[in-house]
Amino acid sequence: MPAPVERAHSHGAEAVRGPDPRAVRSRAAALAAARELLVEQGLPGVTHVAVAARSGIGRTTLYRHWPDTAAMLKDAIAELLDTAQPEPTGELRADLLALLQGTRELLHQSASERAMRTFIERSGVDPSFTDLKHAMYRAGTAGFRRVLADAKERGDLPAALDIGPAVDQLVGPLFFRRLLGDQEIAPEYVRDTVDTFLRCYGAGG
Amino acid sequence: MPAPVERAHSHGAEAVRGPDPRAVRSRAAALAAARELLVEQGLPGVTHVAVAARSGIGRTTLYRHWPDTAAMLKDAIAELLDTAQPEPTGELRADLLALLQGTRELLHQSASERAMRTFIERSGVDPSFTDLKHAMYRAGTAGFRRVLADAKERGDLPAALDIGPAVDQLVGPLFFRRLLGDQEIAPEYVRDTVDTFLRCYGAGG
Repeated sequence: MPAPVERAHSHGAEAVRGPDPRAVRSRAAALAAARELLVEQGLPGVTHVAVAARSGIGRTTLYRHWPDTAAMLKDAIAELLDTAQPEPTGELRADLLALLQGTRELLHQSASERAMRTFIERSGVDPSFTDLKHAMYRAGTAGFRRVLADAKERGDLPAALDIGPAVDQLVGPLFFRRLLGDQEIAPEYVRDTVDTFLRCYGAGG
Repeated sequence: MPAPVERAHSHGAEAVRGPDPRAVRSRAAALAAARELLVEQGLPGVTHVAVAARSGIGRTTLYRHWPDTAAMLKDAIAELLDTAQPEPTGELRADLLALLQGTRELLHQSASERAMRTFIERSGVDPSFTDLKHAMYRAGTAGFRRVLADAKERGDLPAALDIGPAVDQLVGPLFFRRLLGDQEIAPEYVRDTVDTFLRCYGAGG
């Protein structure tokens, strides 16, 4: 996850007394405007001019924080990914349910769903989205990788479990059902996916 | 899967003596041109004018067969989906391996991969792609649903197995790894995914 813009751009004084509250409010307003524009108008609608008009933040400030649209969307979506990944409790089933519930929400929230659909299409076509997409992928799977690695250490999952494919097994079905099948994902679907995973991969499996 | 254009537009005589071989060749040339243009230029490049220029087929003929780009791409990709779904042998593991290997190829062939990325983005934005996307989804999962249903009848899979989520469990990981993670999928990954599925869902599971 990238450091917040304030810290990335912080001066010595700010580093001591923390980010300027006005800067924090401005940043939040700009990123909210970027998400709204993405949902309403798609990628072409997310311009510095439009975000400035929508948020009331000056274009110079926007350009200083985010040189291009990809950088702006990266921070705009990173905030959603953060909230979708609660702190682990150490109880494997509860932690996987919470994470996969967060994945379900990302796939049904208009801003994050539209962003994922857009990034999937841009990939391999628009190089300015390559880093963004990889950062989103790493951030979006970090919570799962951490919970699975901790469970292996505790012995709740086999030490030989390959974490990459295990993450695919957990989240892949939801992405396929939503992004390819355009179907609603029921809460029971999340629960069944976690329980199937634990039955197959659990220390017993 | 939609009937081939010749049959959809067939006259009585054709229905008897089969489609005109020249019409079949023209159709194949037009659809190949549409796939090439999609890969080279993306969706905006797939126009009747460009397909006519690339394939040498008259625009009037193209418009008669495919009133819009979505209809043309639907047939262009349907051909790839067909070849990716071999006839079942009745041996569950072999049939799932063959189908998932076909899925892996679709995710790595430039035309089908680009088409899937494009359809995912267009979904919910461009209504002309809604039917296309749903037809692709049904066609792309038909082979899996058939093989799983037959295996349930034979008793090779539990009678209670819910086929929709089972298909998601098989193909979802590959779609997530390729379209979100932008990673290459190794043949071993396909084999491991099938064997994990059989271990979890097999009649023993």
